[in-house]
Order: sequence, then structure tokens, then C-alpha cells
Amino acid sequence: MGVPPKAVVLLSGGLDSYTAAAIARAEGFELYALTVSYGQVHNGELPAARRIARNLAVSRHLELTVDLRSIGGSALTGAEPVPKDRVLTPAIPRTYVPARNTVLLSLALGWAEVLGARDLFIGVNAVDYSGYPDCRPEYLKAFERLAALATRAGVEGLPTRLHAPLLRLSKADIVRRGAALGLDYGLTVTCYDPEPGDRPCGRCDSCRLRARGFEEAGLADPLLDGAAPQTPGGC
Amino acid sequence: MGVPPKAVVLLSGGLDSYTAAAIARAEGFELYALTVSYGQVHNGELPAARRIARNLAVSRHLELTVDLRSIGGSALTGAEPVPKDRVLTPAIPRTYVPARNTVLLSLALGWAEVLGARDLFIGVNAVDYSGYPDCRPEYLKAFERLAALATRAGVEGLPTRLHAPLLRLSKADIVRRGAALGLDYGLTVTCYDPEPGDRPCGRCDSCRLRARGFEEAGLADPLLDGAAPQTPGGC
Repeated sequence: MGVPPKAVVLLSGGLDSYTAAAIARAEGFELYALTVSYGQVHNGELPAARRIARNLAVSRHLELTVDLRSIGGSALTGAEPVPKDRVLTPAIPRTYVPARNTVLLSLALGWAEVLGARDLFIGVNAVDYSGYPDCRPEYLKAFERLAALATRAGVEGLPTRLHAPLLRLSKADIVRRGAALGLDYGLTVTCYDPEPGDRPCGRCDSCRLRARGFEEAGLADPLLDGAAPQTPGGC
Repeated sequence: MGVPPKAVVLLSGGLDSYTAAAIARAEGFELYALTVSYGQVHNGELPAARRIARNLAVSRHLELTVDLRSIGGSALTGAEPVPKDRVLTPAIPRTYVPARNTVLLSLALGWAEVLGARDLFIGVNAVDYSGYPDCRPEYLKAFERLAALATRAGVEGLPTRLHAPLLRLSKADIVRRGAALGLDYGLTVTCYDPEPGDRPCGRCDSCRLRARGFEEAGLADPLLDGAAPQTPGGC
């Protein structure tokens, strides 16, 4: 048995990145989890990411802060209210955070270089969120090309691979895949704008896509199953 | 006279980014300056960037913090001492900060999107610093391609242009260009590891390249001309 290769996985505290990280582990990677606090209005994501990092027994969980609120331009960082009950269309939603995935991937790339990791995992999905420009396959390919030129490792002929294992899966497929991997989705947070007590609002895009995913997969969502989300450090 | 187009300029507090920003202004852009504190060991850069932003009368100066020290891997963020008196070779120096320019450009891209700016300026230079992978022309082209795919504006057919006006200039050319634009290089800081009292060490790569540039340009460096660097807010 050789030493397992290292992978940097972006962990947001949500269902998708948890599943992507678990897939990386199932593929034999040693996990280095990166969570970026970028000024989300809803700050329940960091505790969720910590629970998930522990659940996946990652080798290290690095938390970085970069305040994208001062850049503005997104409902997710407080520039305007999170939209509710809207018709889901392919247009770019108001919750799009300008250049967010590029910022997150750049930080992951820098850490990967220091760790000697050649693999990055991101839980983006082009099916349900086709409105986000930085979730599209052509965007991810362009980032991989950039990464090959941006780093010392790239110059030395060791380009970084960018994995997006959920890219072409529906939310139902993702939930099924996670269930097969034994994941505990009760650890995650999904809502963009929770009610008091951290209850999912059920009305933002993110809640509604999650609900549809569980429904289509024929599975119960543990967050709605009478069980409250776990408290930070509670697992 | 139309409204001048907006440009986001990365301002480090050094001589190169000051010159690049001044070139943007001379080309008719309205300047939005972005300075990122990424955990540099030497923290004199931020006051210098503020002096320069004031000198250039930028419309806004945004300061963002992202702590790349926790990623490590560079002499510039404290992972090891700054090398002195080394032979300058094309190898990647220990002062290379993993993925730094990708992080800086991502943040600039996000801000540009919110501002409605389609132009980014960065003071990178492929001549003197050919050792940095993320200062090469092919890297910059790859970032521009990524930017066209990463943002709402890109999706709407308004890609972002990345300008690196110093890319193919020697340090002497840069100093000459700045002198022609009337720049006050006494406002800048260049040294990677200053002596007490913020005096340039004269021995790190950055000091030596600056000295050679002024010498070849036949100009006196105001920082070495008996005049101490200005104190923060002192202009």
C-alpha cells in the first residue's frame, strides 16, 4: 500500500461539498478541507463545515477569512434580501457572489501547492444551478488551465487537477450518492436565510432545490425530520 | 466628453503597481484601487498603498484582508527568512507566494463586476521577475480567459480585460516611464525585509532590482537620497 495522495477539498457546510469530499475520500485521497468565511449573511456554515470535517476525519481543516461583503453585489453577502418563492429560471440569481468560486479555488490552489497536493475537489453542480457562471464546465476547464500555469508545481510539469464530481448530477442523484456513502446530511446546512433557531426557511432557492432532491430520491431529509440541526461541535 | 471607464488597479505600495496605476490613469480610466493585506511579514506596504492612492486621486481605495500566512510556503509570509545577497537566477525564488496573483486577481475581478468595470490593471513584470510563474504572459492570458467565463458580465458578452502594462519593461524602463508621468517614488516601499526605521535593507532581491533599475535609468532613488520614507498619512 502506497501513501494516499492528498486532495484539497472545499467544504462549505452544505450538502454538495460534503458529498464531493466524501467521493474524494472514497477515491482514496487523504483529505485537506478548506472552508472560507467570505462574509455570508448566514453564519451557520462554518460550524456545519467543522462537523463535516470531523465526520470525514480530514487530516486538516483550514479556515480562512476574506470579507467579500466590502465588495458587495450579492444577496448572500448582505447587499439585498435573499429572494424567496421565486420561479427558478436559468437566469443568474441575486444570490450569485461575484467571482466567488474563483476566489475559493485560488485559495485552494495556493494551499495545495504548499501541501504538495495535485488534486482539488469542489462540489459545484451545473444542473440545478445552471444560472451561476462559475459552476459551468467550461469555467472549471479554464480554471484548470490557469492552475497549470499559476504555480511552481505547474512550471515543474505537475499540473493541478480540478475535480467536480457532482457537476452533471441532479440534486436527487447527489442525495442518493451520499446515502450510498453513508453520509449524515443532518450535519449540513443549506438554507440561505434561516429562521430563528437555525430552522431552514423552506422558501429560498437553496431550500427548495434540496427539498426537491430528497423528494425525487425518495429519501427523508434528516433536517426536516423533526431532528434539529446539531449544535457546533456536537458530533 | 464621455464618462471615463472604470478600472480596478491592484496597488501593493510598491513601485511597479504605482506605475501601472498611473499608466491606467494616463490612458483615461477612472481608478478603483484594491490593496490586499495577505499577511506580508513586512507591513509597511499598506500605508504606502494609501499614500499612493491619495497621490493618484483614486475614486475609491478598497482594502481587503486574506491571511495567506496560514497557507504558508513563502518567505514573504514568514515561513522562512527573506533571502539576502543571493545570485539572481531564473529559478522560482523563496519569496514566491503560492497562487498569490490568482488570489489578488480573483478579488479584483469580483470588485470589477460589482462596479461595472471591465478593465483590471496589475503591475507584474516578466523581465526581472521571470522566476514567478504567475507573472508570465501565458498565465495572464489564461486568467483573462477564465475571467470571461467566471462572471455575469462575461456571460452577457462583456468580458474583462486584464492589462499588465509593465509586462515586458525592464525596471529601468519602468522607472523612466514613472518619471515621465511625474510619479513620486518616495511614496513607495520596495524592500521585502526592511531595517529598523523602515530603511530598505539593500540586500533582498527586491531592493537590488530597484537599485539596478534606478542606476540603469540614470535617476536617483528618492528613498535612498537621504530622505526617509514618508510616514503613513504623511502626504
